[in-house]
Amino acid sequence: MPYRRQAEALVRQLEIAPFLDALEAEAPGSVDPDIWAAIVEQAARFAEGVIDPVDAALDRQGASLRDGRVVTADGHRAAWRRFADDGWLTLALPEAAGGQGLPLALLTACEELFNHASPAFTMLATPNRTAAAMLENVADPTTRAAWVPQLLSGEWTATICISEPDAGSDVGRIRTRASRGEGGIWRVNGEKCWISYGDHDLAARIGHCMLARSSDAIGVRGLSLFLVPNARDDGAPNGVHVRRIEEKLGLHGSPTCVMGFDGAEATLIGEEGRGLQTLFHMMLLMRLSCAPQGVGVAEAALATAIGYARDRRQGGDPAAPPVAITAHADVQRQLLRMAGRVEIARGIALAAAVVMDLGERCTDDEARAGWLALAQFLLPIAKDHSARLAFDVASEALQVLGGAGYTKEWPVERRLRDARVFAVFEGTTGIQAIDLLHRRLWRERGEGIKRFIALARADVPNGEDGAPLHAVLNRLEEVAQVLSGWHERTRDAESGATAFLDLCGLAVGGWIATRLITHAGDDAVGRRIRAAARFFLAELEPRAEVEARLATLGSARLDAIGDYLD
Amino acid sequence: MPYRRQAEALVRQLEIAPFLDALEAEAPGSVDPDIWAAIVEQAARFAEGVIDPVDAALDRQGASLRDGRVVTADGHRAAWRRFADDGWLTLALPEAAGGQGLPLALLTACEELFNHASPAFTMLATPNRTAAAMLENVADPTTRAAWVPQLLSGEWTATICISEPDAGSDVGRIRTRASRGEGGIWRVNGEKCWISYGDHDLAARIGHCMLARSSDAIGVRGLSLFLVPNARDDGAPNGVHVRRIEEKLGLHGSPTCVMGFDGAEATLIGEEGRGLQTLFHMMLLMRLSCAPQGVGVAEAALATAIGYARDRRQGGDPAAPPVAITAHADVQRQLLRMAGRVEIARGIALAAAVVMDLGERCTDDEARAGWLALAQFLLPIAKDHSARLAFDVASEALQVLGGAGYTKEWPVERRLRDARVFAVFEGTTGIQAIDLLHRRLWRERGEGIKRFIALARADVPNGEDGAPLHAVLNRLEEVAQVLSGWHERTRDAESGATAFLDLCGLAVGGWIATRLITHAGDDAVGRRIRAAARFFLAELEPRAEVEARLATLGSARLDAIGDYLD
Repeated sequence: MPYRRQAEALVRQLEIAPFLDALEAEAPGSVDPDIWAAIVEQAARFAEGVIDPVDAALDRQGASLRDGRVVTADGHRAAWRRFADDGWLTLALPEAAGGQGLPLALLTACEELFNHASPAFTMLATPNRTAAAMLENVADPTTRAAWVPQLLSGEWTATICISEPDAGSDVGRIRTRASRGEGGIWRVNGEKCWISYGDHDLAARIGHCMLARSSDAIGVRGLSLFLVPNARDDGAPNGVHVRRIEEKLGLHGSPTCVMGFDGAEATLIGEEGRGLQTLFHMMLLMRLSCAPQGVGVAEAALATAIGYARDRRQGGDPAAPPVAITAHADVQRQLLRMAGRVEIARGIALAAAVVMDLGERCTDDEARAGWLALAQFLLPIAKDHSARLAFDVASEALQVLGGAGYTKEWPVERRLRDARVFAVFEGTTGIQAIDLLHRRLWRERGEGIKRFIALARADVPNGEDGAPLHAVLNRLEEVAQVLSGWHERTRDAESGATAFLDLCGLAVGGWIATRLITHAGDDAVGRRIRAAARFFLAELEPRAEVEARLATLGSARLDAIGDYLD
Repeated sequence: MPYRRQAEALVRQLEIAPFLDALEAEAPGSVDPDIWAAIVEQAARFAEGVIDPVDAALDRQGASLRDGRVVTADGHRAAWRRFADDGWLTLALPEAAGGQGLPLALLTACEELFNHASPAFTMLATPNRTAAAMLENVADPTTRAAWVPQLLSGEWTATICISEPDAGSDVGRIRTRASRGEGGIWRVNGEKCWISYGDHDLAARIGHCMLARSSDAIGVRGLSLFLVPNARDDGAPNGVHVRRIEEKLGLHGSPTCVMGFDGAEATLIGEEGRGLQTLFHMMLLMRLSCAPQGVGVAEAALATAIGYARDRRQGGDPAAPPVAITAHADVQRQLLRMAGRVEIARGIALAAAVVMDLGERCTDDEARAGWLALAQFLLPIAKDHSARLAFDVASEALQVLGGAGYTKEWPVERRLRDARVFAVFEGTTGIQAIDLLHRRLWRERGEGIKRFIALARADVPNGEDGAPLHAVLNRLEEVAQVLSGWHERTRDAESGATAFLDLCGLAVGGWIATRLITHAGDDAVGRRIRAAARFFLAELEPRAEVEARLATLGSARLDAIGDYLD
C-alpha cells in the first residue's frame, strides 16, 4: 500500500514534469509515460519485495570487519545480485555503454522507491552506476572494456574516494600521493576516510575512483583522478587495506571505511592535474541521486505516520469511543506539512533530473549551456532540500507516533538515524550554500537563478494559484540582487548563505507546487497530490519571508563571536 | 572546561534572574547568590566527576530484563548512591519535610548540569523528589512517615504511572481499575506503559504514583491517585510485574517499562475521584524539570561543537595552513545560533522556576494566584521550548562536526538520540499547544499571557535594545486577540496552535534576551552571555513574524485532508 501510493504519485509527477516537451524535441522517443509507468511499477514491486525485507537486518547487523575484510549482513548479497540481475544498474546509461538509454528522470523515480525500502542498500548502486558513466566517457579503451561491463552487471563495484582526515570539505588539502614509477605505472600512498562501501563481500572486485596529489601544485590544481582496484588484474592484492569501519548513528548496512593505500597500482583517468574536473560529471550525478534518497526516506517515514494515525484512536468525546487521531486538526496539520514537503521535494528532484537529461542530450551548445546552468542551480537545492527533508520528516513522523515512534518496534527511528548524514555527505548544507553564493551568484553572475526565475514566471500565470509563487519569485529576485551586490562584503553575504539556499528552495518548491495544482488532475491521485501542494503553498510566503530577511541581515550579529569563544 | 563555562553562565543568570526582589520579599533570606554560586559549583563538580563518567555505559549497556527484574548498567547504582548521599534529592524540599529549603531556581540550575552529564541518569531523581513533595502535602501521616524520608534518601524510588496502551495523551481513557475489597484495602488491576524506571536494581523499593479508575464516572472524573509499592511493607511481592522494557532510540540508561498490576495493594492519596487534581502540583514540578533537562542536553552538544570547531582546521588560503573552522562566517553563525537558543532557554527555565518559587511561597492569595497564572503560561513554553531545543541543538552540533558527529566516537549522536523523546513525554508539543489555547487562552481568558506581556513591557524599556522585544510583544498581543476571538472556531485556532506556542516562546525568549543584554555585565562571562543574547535578538523579529502569520492562517489549508488520506 505505501509503495503503491508512492508509485502512483511518481507516475503522475513524471507525466507532468517540466520541460518534457524540450526533452522529447531533443531526443525523440525519450519521453514515453507508458513505459515509464510500467518501470516505476516494477521498481515499486522490487523495492517492496526484495529490498524492504533486508533493511532491518542491514540496520541490526550492520557490517563488520573480519580478518581484514568487511562482512555484510544476512541477505545483503542476495538482494544485491537480484538488483543487478534485474538491470537496475543500467537503466539510465547510454545504450552504447551497455545501458538501457532511459532518462535520469525515470531513474530518479525508481531510486526514490529503492530508498524508501533502504537507503543503506541503495547507496551502493550510485557510485557503481556513475563511475561506469564516467569511465565510459573519459577512460582509455582498455580500462573501459575491463570495468564498465563489470560495474553494470554488479560483479564489481566502485567507490568515490576523496575525503581524508585533514581534507573534508576542503578538498584542496588532499595529501594522498600518486607517483609514477618503473614502467610508467602509477602508485598511490595515503589514507582515505568516509569511504562508503570501501570494502564488502557483495562483489568480486572494488575499484576506487580516487583523487590523489600527482604534483606539487597547490590546492586542487595538483589533483588527478585515478582508478585504484583492491585487487590487481591477476587477482593479487594491490596494497589496499580497510583500516576501520566507522560506528555510525545509522546507515549501518553501508560500511563506511577508513582505507589505507600502500603503493597500490592505479590507472590515471582523464588528464593529469584535472582530477576534480574529470570527476565533475560523476559528482553531479551523485548529487542528483541524493535527491530521491532524501525523498524516499521521507516518504517511508510519512507512510508509517499515516498508517499509524489512521489506526491510533485517542481523544474525542470522553463518553464515546475514541476517534482516529487523523480527526484532530493538529495531527492533520502535521501530516499535510510532511506530505506537502515530500510531494514538492519529489517534484524538485524530478525537475532537476529532466534538466540534467537535457544537459546530457541537448545538441545545441548554447542551449546545453543554459540547461547546465539551470542544473547547477537546481542540483544543490534538490540535494540539500531532500537531505534535510528526510531528517525533518522522520522526526515529524516520530512525533505523530509519539512514544511508539521512539521505539525500535516502528521503523521511524531508523529513518531518522539513517537520514541524519544526508546533509553532511556529498557536500554539507553550509558548503552547498557557500557554493551557491560564490560560484552560482558571483562567478556565474546568477545565470542559473535568473534562468529559473524567468522560466518559472513564464510557466505559471500570476493568477489566484500563482500569486504566492510570483510574490516569492519577486522576493528572491530582490534578495539575489542584494547578495550579488555584496561580492566585496563576503562575510555579510556568507552569514546569510544558508537562508538564501533555503529561500531558493522555497521558490523552486513554490514553482513545483503551483504546477502540481494546475496539472495533477482530478482523480484520486491528482487530488491527493493537490492537497499536499495546496498546504505547501498556503505556508509558502511566511516561510519564504523569514529566509529572505535572514539572508540579508548582514554579519553584525556575528561580531561578538570572539567574546563568545573567549 | 565545558562544565565550568556552564556553571559560570548559570551563576550569572541566577544572580540576575527576574523577580528575585519579589522572592526575597516573600521569603526573606531565600535569595542568597553566594550560597547559590557555591552549590552550583558543587553540582558542576558532581556532574563532571560522578555522573558524566557513567553516561557512556548507560547508553551502551542500557538496562535489561533478567528473571523478571530490571538490571541496570555498570556504575549506575554507585553513582545513584553518591547522588542521594550528597543530598541532591533534598535541595528544594521544605525543611519541614527533611529538605534543605532552597529555591526551585537553584535546583533548576543544578539539574541543568546533571542533565549535561546524563539525562538518563538524572531522570530518576525527578519523580523521586516530586513524589516526596506531593506525598508530604497530601498523603496521610503514616504513608508520609513511611515514604518521604526513604524517597529523599534515595533508598526507595518513585514513578509516575499514568499512560496505558489506549490512554496516552487522552488521560481520560485510563482503564486500570482500583477497587476496595475486604478491610477497606484498595487493589489495582491493569497495565501501565511508558513507565520510566518502572523497575530497576538501584533501590530497595519502588512506589508507583498511579492514576486508576475508582468509579464509573466518565473521563478524568473517575480517576483517583494511588501509591502502589512493588513490595508490601513486609517485603512480600505486591502483584507488580515488569512485562517488557522498551527498546528505544536513546535514553537507554533509563528503563522504560510496561508494568502489570495484578491485585496490587494500593494506598489512596488525596480525595477519591480527584486523582488528576492531586497530581497537579507534582506534574507542574515534573514539567519544570523538563526545562533544565533540555537545556542541559543542548549545552552538552554545544560544548562538544565548540571544542571541535576550535580544533578542526579546514579552509582558508590553500597555500597556507588551514584555519580553525571557527573563522568561517557560516560556522560562527551555527555556533551563535545554538548559543543564543541555549542561553535564552536557560533564562526561561530559571525565570519559570522563580515564578514557581513565588507560587509556592507567596502568602497573599491574590498575588499567589497571579504567580500561578504566570507559571501556567511559562511552564509549557519552558518545557516544550527546551525539549525541541535539545534535539535541534544536538542536530546542529552534529552538523558542525560533520561526518565525525555522525559516529559514536563523539557524544553528539547520543545527545540527539536521548533528546528526541523530550517533546513526546510529559505532554507532546501538540498537547502543550492545544492546552495553551483551550485552558490558558480561552478558559482562563489569557490571564497568564496578559500578565507576561505587562510584566515584560514594564521590565524592559522600549529603547534600542528593547525595540525587537516590544515589536514582538505587540505582535503577540494582536495574535492572542485574534485567537481569543476564535473560541467558536476551534479548528481554525487549533491549526495554528503550535505556531502560537512558538510565538509565545519567542516572545518570552526576547524578554530574557533583552534582560541579559542589560544585566549580564561586562566581564568575560557577561560578554559571552551577551554575545549569545544579541544573536538571538537579531533574528527574533523575522522568526516571530512567521509564527504569528502561521498561527492566524486558519484551517482552510487542512480542508483537503480527506482527499489526501483517501
